[in-house]
Amino acid sequence: MNASMKTSATKAAVTTPSDREIRIERVFAAPRDRVWKAFTDPKLIAQWWGRGNKLVVERMEVARGGHWRFVEHTPDGVHGFEGRYREVTPQERLVHTFEWDGMPGHVAVETVVFEDLGDGRTRVVNTTLFHLTEERDGMLNSGMAQGLDASYAALDGLLATPA
Amino acid sequence: MNASMKTSATKAAVTTPSDREIRIERVFAAPRDRVWKAFTDPKLIAQWWGRGNKLVVERMEVARGGHWRFVEHTPDGVHGFEGRYREVTPQERLVHTFEWDGMPGHVAVETVVFEDLGDGRTRVVNTTLFHLTEERDGMLNSGMAQGLDASYAALDGLLATPA
Repeated sequence: MNASMKTSATKAAVTTPSDREIRIERVFAAPRDRVWKAFTDPKLIAQWWGRGNKLVVERMEVARGGHWRFVEHTPDGVHGFEGRYREVTPQERLVHTFEWDGMPGHVAVETVVFEDLGDGRTRVVNTTLFHLTEERDGMLNSGMAQGLDASYAALDGLLATPA
Repeated sequence: MNASMKTSATKAAVTTPSDREIRIERVFAAPRDRVWKAFTDPKLIAQWWGRGNKLVVERMEVARGGHWRFVEHTPDGVHGFEGRYREVTPQERLVHTFEWDGMPGHVAVETVVFEDLGDGRTRVVNTTLFHLTEERDGMLNSGMAQGLDASYAALDGLLATPA
């Protein structure tokens, strides 16, 4: 019973608030400053974003107008991802674009909101907006939710270690 | 009378086919291969895209997945623009993203279709899709149509010189 409660508490809640959006909500057992740092420090993101795969952070300029580019080395091959920061409001809000090399020129906008739950935990709500419903559905069908659960599980592990 | 006919024939027709799109249609008095080259050759684009302003083509990899970045030096300041190619079908279709440094992370998708009119002229139809209606309206209100007319007038001049 405890095991299933734990599973349900740590699984990301994936919903589709509109026909061009995906919303993902997840609670982390760490204070907001640590969660914010895990999303914005290149050394930390390299430890969880790739879900155990080697992740090369080629570029990560966390400021309005800055670019980011990650290259993930998976057993199936090398995948590049990139985008640009639209808004960086420390500990509160991060807005950036997202593009996978496999579908160049298809660009989504991710808004990540960090909410301090006041009990040492932090809620992260990630809303992604696509140009087309087909792009949104392609992302949903790509196994993105499972990939994200794996990334967030790795982030749980990182946050469980002392700062 | 001839002058006004000429003006109306060479002015780009700007319409809004949906609440997130701008469609711009323009006929050029040159065969399709020359118009295609003017849109895809860095040396040629530097001669018309900036409407007489100095344009530095920092990057222009005209192939699927390739990046482009232009820096325009205007009397008011320096403006960077960039994006990535989604589709390059020679002489027929060019699809790429478009982002202005002044609004980083706001990315539109431009689809440019080149139509051979069979009489030595070429119709270019440019359709731009935005994530939000507000972004589309912001572009319309920025004087974009006037800027484009000036760019296309410079392109007329370039196409009027022998290849």
